[in-house]
Amino acid sequence: MKLRPELLEKYVFSRVGVRDPRVLVGPSYGEDSAVVDLGSGKLLVAHIDPITGAVENVGWLAVHVACNDVAVRGARPAWIMPAILLPEDAGEEAIDTITRQIDSAAREVGVMVIGGHTEFAPGVDRPIIATAALGILEEGRYISTSGAEVGDVVLMTKRAGLEGTSILATDFREALLERGVEEELLERGARFLEMISVVKEALLLARMGADSMHDPTEGGVLGGLAEVAYASGKLVEVWEERIPVAEETRVLCEALEIDPLKLISSGTLIATLPPERAEEALEALEREGIDASLVGEVREGRGLLVHRADGRSELVGEYVEDELMRLWSELGR
Amino acid sequence: MKLRPELLEKYVFSRVGVRDPRVLVGPSYGEDSAVVDLGSGKLLVAHIDPITGAVENVGWLAVHVACNDVAVRGARPAWIMPAILLPEDAGEEAIDTITRQIDSAAREVGVMVIGGHTEFAPGVDRPIIATAALGILEEGRYISTSGAEVGDVVLMTKRAGLEGTSILATDFREALLERGVEEELLERGARFLEMISVVKEALLLARMGADSMHDPTEGGVLGGLAEVAYASGKLVEVWEERIPVAEETRVLCEALEIDPLKLISSGTLIATLPPERAEEALEALEREGIDASLVGEVREGRGLLVHRADGRSELVGEYVEDELMRLWSELGR
Repeated sequence: MKLRPELLEKYVFSRVGVRDPRVLVGPSYGEDSAVVDLGSGKLLVAHIDPITGAVENVGWLAVHVACNDVAVRGARPAWIMPAILLPEDAGEEAIDTITRQIDSAAREVGVMVIGGHTEFAPGVDRPIIATAALGILEEGRYISTSGAEVGDVVLMTKRAGLEGTSILATDFREALLERGVEEELLERGARFLEMISVVKEALLLARMGADSMHDPTEGGVLGGLAEVAYASGKLVEVWEERIPVAEETRVLCEALEIDPLKLISSGTLIATLPPERAEEALEALEREGIDASLVGEVREGRGLLVHRADGRSELVGEYVEDELMRLWSELGR
Repeated sequence: MKLRPELLEKYVFSRVGVRDPRVLVGPSYGEDSAVVDLGSGKLLVAHIDPITGAVENVGWLAVHVACNDVAVRGARPAWIMPAILLPEDAGEEAIDTITRQIDSAAREVGVMVIGGHTEFAPGVDRPIIATAALGILEEGRYISTSGAEVGDVVLMTKRAGLEGTSILATDFREALLERGVEEELLERGARFLEMISVVKEALLLARMGADSMHDPTEGGVLGGLAEVAYASGKLVEVWEERIPVAEETRVLCEALEIDPLKLISSGTLIATLPPERAEEALEALEREGIDASLVGEVREGRGLLVHRADGRSELVGEYVEDELMRLWSELGR
């Protein structure tokens, strides 16, 4: 579970050691990747992300999730370093499986594992991988969560709640079968994880002039949009009926009574860009086979305003609790 | 517990995704930090290290341990990213303590926290921190574990088993008191952890023309020397009586019947350098208040040859099991 913004502010963002003027983006609300000016026009983009909740695909996921956050800065992820912690009773085959997955995901994204650490660690009951991902921007321009401009349109790729759909279909399989969801639909939902990489669309939208980009994770699409809004100090206004939700996601969410827009959504990319670039961006994404939708606008103000399909409007705060967290605490893990 | 070299070879070093010609040092035996050529004479030095076994100083340790590995490449550590995983029942005060420690260690080393991640994670029963550390070399030259040259002298700083002494004095306190070790000596031993940073001496020895440097962790000074020897494809010959061991370390090791030279030794730096540079290097270290000793020589051949004080000679293999691991498995944890 991510920390709430007020705790991050109090304990994390203020305790950064020696401030370095070369650091253009450091620890701050909604910004996951750091940007450092190396001189000679080169910017280093760096990120670290742990995977703690998964078992089956942990190696594969770790690579994609870390690389996504480098790509949303507009940088091609290039190098990764996974720190792999295994339970002390895990066997050699656990290492075998995980490093195969890492190798395979690294080939998919086109990155090299340049370092890392593997150990059997006391105090962990499942594999945990913290992965650092690095990339270089050669032209001095980077994209941040906080760069949304008044007048921008809000674009999102793929569908809402992609990662969450896969988690629901796997972790809540029994409960969903009991509630009459068909097995075949669960299987399709579980495969949504395959769409987790946003590297291709992020690099494309960076070239298309995106002002801000963000990879919504916990808190889902609305959590991600709120981070763009509050980090940018703007009002983001979106319409629920324009936000695409896959049939599989809708069925699972209805069965469990959760909101697909607040369901963890790695695999979706949020970008804001000047309206005159929107058409071209949508066409370019389509040529790459990536669905995308215009879901809202950026205005003067501050916060996230959601116009629901039923006519109600909702002002969303800085922190959106993920529906999955609520579900876990209600149903037990 | 670190992986044995044959497992690293089989499952880790061969599974690196897409090989990148800019990577000058990637995953390989004895090399902890990666080196990447960024062009314009700039080299990126990058490392990741988890702390899994400590509770009290975990934040402070995480920063120093990660920065040490960047410094042994001759690069000043500049930026760090800690991924902090806390047990789900840890309170706000755990975050408070850890981020204070991180801030304080970062100030000691002179680095900035540029990113990171903090979460309450399922599946961990103690705080775990995986820290990525980064630095830049501006002049294109880096130092590696594998750079030892025939004719070099082998230098080590401080004493053997520093980190291990502190762990013994804390984790085996009761057993040591029972065996008649004095409380005051235990307290002095516990404070050896304060010497854990090798950043100052590593940067100094890099300027003094070191051919190779290495930060011995698990397996102690002999483990570290073996890594230098095998990674360099040379014979390293050392004399036990020249390797300084603190009185506190000697007493604790005798009481527990363990070898101080195979006791985890973060805080010690191993370097090899041309003999004509040795005198000047020792003087420069002394001016900085850092003890150092010449403990051996690099010759043609392969492996680590240790001449023990009792007249026996021992050829040490690629992997040295740490005495602490042996002790934990004998006494239970």
